Amino acid sequence: MNFIIRKANQDDMHDVLNLIKELALFEKEPDEVEISTEELVKDGFGKEKNFRCLVAEVESKVVGMALFYPRYSTWKGNVLHLEDLIVTEKFRGKGIGYALFSEFIRYAHNKKVKRVQWVVLDWNANAIKFYKRNGGEILNDWRVTVMNKNSIKKFIENESI
Amino acid sequence: MNFIIRKANQDDMHDVLNLIKELALFEKEPDEVEISTEELVKDGFGKEKNFRCLVAEVESKVVGMALFYPRYSTWKGNVLHLEDLIVTEKFRGKGIGYALFSEFIRYAHNKKVKRVQWVVLDWNANAIKFYKRNGGEILNDWRVTVMNKNSIKKFIENESI
Repeated sequence: MNFIIRKANQDDMHDVLNLIKELALFEKEPDEVEISTEELVKDGFGKEKNFRCLVAEVESKVVGMALFYPRYSTWKGNVLHLEDLIVTEKFRGKGIGYALFSEFIRYAHNKKVKRVQWVVLDWNANAIKFYKRNGGEILNDWRVTVMNKNSIKKFIENESI
Repeated sequence: MNFIIRKANQDDMHDVLNLIKELALFEKEPDEVEISTEELVKDGFGKEKNFRCLVAEVESKVVGMALFYPRYSTWKGNVLHLEDLIVTEKFRGKGIGYALFSEFIRYAHNKKVKRVQWVVLDWNANAIKFYKRNGGEILNDWRVTVMNKNSIKKFIENESI
């Protein structure tokens, strides 16, 4: 299997969005994807570059991607967050995910960050196995908490009463 | 209890670091704090402003803080992450944590982000209760995964063989 890993450009964002949707379906949250190709282009390649993205290509077709950005740890300082690592189903098991992950880790190493991190679903046994094999440590006692736009609005409204 | 919430400045970073250390001790990870006051000043108030910080003051003394920064969601776009929300033990239960949280949510609302998020320890029942009461949703099936500097180095070295 011949593939190349390269930096994404804005013309890739349509394919990247399809990969995002494929992963959201696998994660049983297909309706959660509200983003558009245009937003990805604006947010990643506009005035503010809010993320970096690598793509994997087979015969000029995008089959995988890794998307990441800086975060700040009050324990470590500057760290990197891997938001998504996706290989389309047909091309899994060929080392493409590993190659994307490896390129991300090299980037982190060059940036001299003290930590990289990401989240994984607790039932995604293949991903957990992959991450552990490559040096990832699963922190079982932390829970992700979110407040969506409606809850933010509700909070503000309740406060205004 | 009279207190004020205000934007932190660099002179607060010494007190902020003490709060970070107090929280890390509570979270049973006191040795994980590697950051210095100087780094907090450089990273938060230097050329790159990698985080925003609010402090709570009682009689001109910093007794609490909230620290947050932008993140990028491939489902929602620009979101905000609340890295730390801390009130020193002696001043808990007086509404200071709520006031810091509220100011953060107002900031998020003004920025029109589609989501705010943070992490919480699964045994921190008081924090979970507080977050749920205010509209936070705990995602029980996601696991935080980290790779520290040593694991990054090891990964790169293994690849070079």
